[in-house]
Amino acid sequence: MSRYELRFSGAGGQGLITAGIIMAKAASIYEGKQAVQSQSYGPEARGGAAKSEVIISEDAIDYPKVTKCDVLLAMTQKACDKYCADIKAGGVLLVDSNLVSTIPQGAFRTVSLPMLKIAKVDVGRVITANMVALGAMVAISGVVSRENAEEAVVSSFPEPFTAINRKAFNHGFERAREVFAAAIQ
Amino acid sequence: MSRYELRFSGAGGQGLITAGIIMAKAASIYEGKQAVQSQSYGPEARGGAAKSEVIISEDAIDYPKVTKCDVLLAMTQKACDKYCADIKAGGVLLVDSNLVSTIPQGAFRTVSLPMLKIAKVDVGRVITANMVALGAMVAISGVVSRENAEEAVVSSFPEPFTAINRKAFNHGFERAREVFAAAIQ
Repeated sequence: MSRYELRFSGAGGQGLITAGIIMAKAASIYEGKQAVQSQSYGPEARGGAAKSEVIISEDAIDYPKVTKCDVLLAMTQKACDKYCADIKAGGVLLVDSNLVSTIPQGAFRTVSLPMLKIAKVDVGRVITANMVALGAMVAISGVVSRENAEEAVVSSFPEPFTAINRKAFNHGFERAREVFAAAIQ
Repeated sequence: MSRYELRFSGAGGQGLITAGIIMAKAASIYEGKQAVQSQSYGPEARGGAAKSEVIISEDAIDYPKVTKCDVLLAMTQKACDKYCADIKAGGVLLVDSNLVSTIPQGAFRTVSLPMLKIAKVDVGRVITANMVALGAMVAISGVVSRENAEEAVVSSFPEPFTAINRKAFNHGFERAREVFAAAIQ
């Protein structure tokens, strides 16, 4: 019973639920694995806490919630502080370098990436930050292939938005790959 | 109950049991985690199959054997063929590039490194290949820090042999870091 556990955490409105759903879709539909995705919000719809969890396994998943994250994405300082204790030893913490300034220490590696800025400057639409984050999560985790994840992204948006979301995904993947490699020390 | 599972597999005489014991020592004595190490041999003492397993956790370890490897080291083709199905999705396969020519495909990343050659040429003693492999396992997994693992290496050999084993460990770490980074694609 092997489980790969990912949590996307941050604030409502950052698109983290969508990112989690696409990760689960990549794993199940495109990769042929079992996947369970769940989500929870704070009391506010926008700006409050939001988290999306994805469990991926080759076998049936008996328990649908994260026990310890293989990779934790934290898109706010609050989410980082709240959830960093849930990272598994040998796991990875992915944070937005401009939104999370106090990085906790632990038996995990940290990838700090300006995801919001990449979305705004390199991709051209700040709203695609969630797909930048998804690309980074795929690069870091390796739990689904880049190709399958990209297909899941493309199939999740209507035509006028596929190109920009694909672009965001690929920017996130490329940048995270570099920073993750540098984080091995 | 988060578990990080490592298996060192290959042939008897390659020093894999020692490598596993030092990994467990790094995790428990130097890192303050729970660790269980176990080993098994084939019928021959030398040249037969050998494997060493290490489970690392922050909590008590209820089951001492590998269920799915986070990282699998295979130092022979036979070991690679036998155990590659046990790698967890998102896990890593580490093989000796001169001893394992047929690399299986799966939902894992592969780091192919000439560990035996590094031990022979760069370190100067082929017998240190197990410490090259240990350095690579530490770089890939991130489950123990480089410093703690190095201390565990140093404390495991009598004085005349500490320098060369430390050198082997560091060569393995550095080379694996490069190759692992390139394997993210």
